[in-house]
Amino acid sequence: MGENDDSEIIEHHVEEEMEKKASRSHTASSSFLESVTPSDREGHSGTQSSHRLLAYSDALISIIATVMILPVAHTKVEDNEELRQSVQALLTTKIGVYLMTFLIVTVAWAAHIRLFQVIVRIDDCLALLNLACMMLITFLPYTFSLMATFPEHILGILLFCGCVMVMGVIQSLIVLYAFSRPFLLNEQIQISENQTFYKQHILKVIMRVPIMCLFASIFSFIFFQLSYVLLAIVIFLPYISQSLKWCRNKAIGQVEETPDSMLFYTYLPNEPLTKERVEAFSDGVYAIVATLLILDICEDNVPDPSVVQKQFGGSLIAALQSYGPEYLAYFGSFATVGLLWFVHHSLFLHVTKTTRLMGLLNTLSLAFVGGLPLAYQLTHEFPHNSRNELEAIQISCVIIFFAGIFQLTIWVVALYNEQETLHPYVRYGGREHVFMLAKLALYPCVALGTFFLTCILSKFSASIFHLMEITVPFAFLVLRLLVRVGLALLRLIFCPERSDPKTAIEEEEEEARVPFNPIVT
Amino acid sequence: MGENDDSEIIEHHVEEEMEKKASRSHTASSSFLESVTPSDREGHSGTQSSHRLLAYSDALISIIATVMILPVAHTKVEDNEELRQSVQALLTTKIGVYLMTFLIVTVAWAAHIRLFQVIVRIDDCLALLNLACMMLITFLPYTFSLMATFPEHILGILLFCGCVMVMGVIQSLIVLYAFSRPFLLNEQIQISENQTFYKQHILKVIMRVPIMCLFASIFSFIFFQLSYVLLAIVIFLPYISQSLKWCRNKAIGQVEETPDSMLFYTYLPNEPLTKERVEAFSDGVYAIVATLLILDICEDNVPDPSVVQKQFGGSLIAALQSYGPEYLAYFGSFATVGLLWFVHHSLFLHVTKTTRLMGLLNTLSLAFVGGLPLAYQLTHEFPHNSRNELEAIQISCVIIFFAGIFQLTIWVVALYNEQETLHPYVRYGGREHVFMLAKLALYPCVALGTFFLTCILSKFSASIFHLMEITVPFAFLVLRLLVRVGLALLRLIFCPERSDPKTAIEEEEEEARVPFNPIVT
Repeated sequence: MGENDDSEIIEHHVEEEMEKKASRSHTASSSFLESVTPSDREGHSGTQSSHRLLAYSDALISIIATVMILPVAHTKVEDNEELRQSVQALLTTKIGVYLMTFLIVTVAWAAHIRLFQVIVRIDDCLALLNLACMMLITFLPYTFSLMATFPEHILGILLFCGCVMVMGVIQSLIVLYAFSRPFLLNEQIQISENQTFYKQHILKVIMRVPIMCLFASIFSFIFFQLSYVLLAIVIFLPYISQSLKWCRNKAIGQVEETPDSMLFYTYLPNEPLTKERVEAFSDGVYAIVATLLILDICEDNVPDPSVVQKQFGGSLIAALQSYGPEYLAYFGSFATVGLLWFVHHSLFLHVTKTTRLMGLLNTLSLAFVGGLPLAYQLTHEFPHNSRNELEAIQISCVIIFFAGIFQLTIWVVALYNEQETLHPYVRYGGREHVFMLAKLALYPCVALGTFFLTCILSKFSASIFHLMEITVPFAFLVLRLLVRVGLALLRLIFCPERSDPKTAIEEEEEEARVPFNPIVT
Repeated sequence: MGENDDSEIIEHHVEEEMEKKASRSHTASSSFLESVTPSDREGHSGTQSSHRLLAYSDALISIIATVMILPVAHTKVEDNEELRQSVQALLTTKIGVYLMTFLIVTVAWAAHIRLFQVIVRIDDCLALLNLACMMLITFLPYTFSLMATFPEHILGILLFCGCVMVMGVIQSLIVLYAFSRPFLLNEQIQISENQTFYKQHILKVIMRVPIMCLFASIFSFIFFQLSYVLLAIVIFLPYISQSLKWCRNKAIGQVEETPDSMLFYTYLPNEPLTKERVEAFSDGVYAIVATLLILDICEDNVPDPSVVQKQFGGSLIAALQSYGPEYLAYFGSFATVGLLWFVHHSLFLHVTKTTRLMGLLNTLSLAFVGGLPLAYQLTHEFPHNSRNELEAIQISCVIIFFAGIFQLTIWVVALYNEQETLHPYVRYGGREHVFMLAKLALYPCVALGTFFLTCILSKFSASIFHLMEITVPFAFLVLRLLVRVGLALLRLIFCPERSDPKTAIEEEEEEARVPFNPIVT
């Protein structure tokens, strides 16, 4: 059977590759075809697939979403004062700025997704307009910094509103330009008869936020507190309206929605967030977060030659030993972020569609992931066995716990609608179901366990934490084996009549395989 | 005709989309099929497409390649000493570290590409091993910092060699693991009869660098200068051997190569570098470079409330005015990097295959792009009309020039072998040929022009530079029009008998369209 299976796969491979090549050459030739359009007569460039433009935008947006953790991380916590106080001081401004930035940037990113679900091809002009838009998005964190440092000054609000309004104008330009060249649009809109309706609808949705910002900037001169309320509404409105709609649906029952009303937020209701772009954005965040600490290490942890000569008698190793905790913090945070990425990757491999709620949960998970390097840095900044160290370790555990639990929640939410959102393998009763649960639950469980252990054995908190760091990667390596053994044990306990674990596993496999026969064949 | 064309495109679109969907569901079902393999019996996870793992690796590697510019940028250049001296001091250590890091990381990246050209599917175990490998790569810049700061200490060399040797071991593990599960491999190797030969060959190639590092670490105890020579060989050997081979081929003539010898460096000789991964890596570098400056701005350019109260009488705008140049530097560098990305994007849209030389040129171009934020920061750090300011502006021009000229060279090199590497549109005589040339030549020409203008009109250097920054984006917007007008003028001058520019353009289009008829039909 092994031989047969292998050859089948090989055939499959070759087939797939050939199809890929065919589709590649197909797109290539189709882009040539499309370049030979009347638009070229008017002095405009040929159309291009928007894939790489979107990948670049995702990279830019994910970097911007996460860099605001750096000012938080660079705030030196004084050793003699209590960590709790300094954390409170941090919380009020810098962490607030970080979270606000993260949320507003993801809102802007969601708007970007929606826009480029309508516009599926680009040309040079659109690419340049998009770059201008990106430039303004990258400037938003700075306006938040100003707002947080000078909450009573209206300059921060005005700058923010100005950026958003200019972005609105640029996005409207993009829409107008794309609708004047319909071959750039999604085929659904391209073949629709009332393009003008679509255009006006999309423009209306796009201009909503800039108009609210216009009001916010006007109110800032009269009563600036109101402006902050308006800005908060801008950030949270999509989520609030979504949850309100969900509550209403649950209360009154599913209201039959017209296609037009479904187009209210997402122009394409069948795909609220493009899965590929959610993955690309998450990859960017995980990558920049994983490398944040090496940045500091390369800059700060290379000792000065004169200091080494004077204080350590020329012994470089002795000088570097004082940096030991920093290296540990780097490797610890890299491993944790890397493994959280691994869990995310495993989960999204089996996700077929991303709903809006899943997108929100993913954003929240990523926001906690962004805080990880900071937490790890804190764990090594305080003297051993101090109260501060204990608290820093517990904060790290809490952050890991929330980053992991939100990932788990994505899956739980997806299970509610599993026919649409998940591959059969990880649905209820699927053969990967239990394994996926174990993968997703590992980090929250370990973090929770470490948290309570450090509460009880506060003296050994650092050792427990380091032990956790080292064992988790290995736990992932043998996780599948552990799940199998665990399942076999469970069966042994609850169904003692089937005592042979080997047949139990095989039977389980047989059972699990049944629901997928329709797909395989 | 317009109507006809449009409908044709729509059909095309729909077709393409359907094909996409088909291929997606195909891959989905094929991955299910492959999961039902004997390997699952042995307690291993199902196989997965390696696409996202590679994208994440590309993001990590590109960030690591570019962050080493930050220590260079953060070196404060004293205003009273001459810039030239401080630049010389920088050049010897930090810029050296940056370039060395960039080169070694791209070598590691190329090795990663080759490895995952052989292994086309992954499972959980490979993903975790790959993460461990990534962690070691991200640590390499720090070892370079140590080497640069303490050139006479052997610790930096030992750390570097240690990292490389451990990476070699992990990569060998990856290869051994993948060959023990042949369904993870490239179908070319999967169906080949002498898999053992392939395995041994690949292991030999992988272990070459770690073994050289082993020698380097041994020599470091005896005569450490030799270690540096060995490390330099490690970095440059692929390029040297490639250029030697090229020279030999030119001198003796094309030697008939056996497939085995062609497999010496690239396991798959027909695709030295995967185009998608070159694009992903470049995107990462451009994205991180474009946002490097906002990082500094958010951290350093938010004034302290007490300072604003004391020095500026509570006027935030007055306090922020002193930061004006920094904002200008940010927007200038973002626009330049964004437009260079745009040129890169336009070029690679028409590239069908990346040769090794094109990859090297791309790396060099990216290395200069990485230096851009530093150069822009320098332009605004010095008093107006000082000698330092002039030199900083000229350095910026030089960096832009080289970043652009290497991009142009990629295209020129591609043209030598245009049948294999380029789409017909940008080949000699292609209808996009002149336009592509104009796009690629715009930045080098502008940078060169600005450089010489600042030499002559040194008093207005800052104004000239800012004018350049502002006009270049608009130049890109109207470039196609300019090229048309330029071509028409040229025809008017050299072929005066066809004096009507309109027909000239149309005829040109007709001519240009001829070579592509075979593709279109």
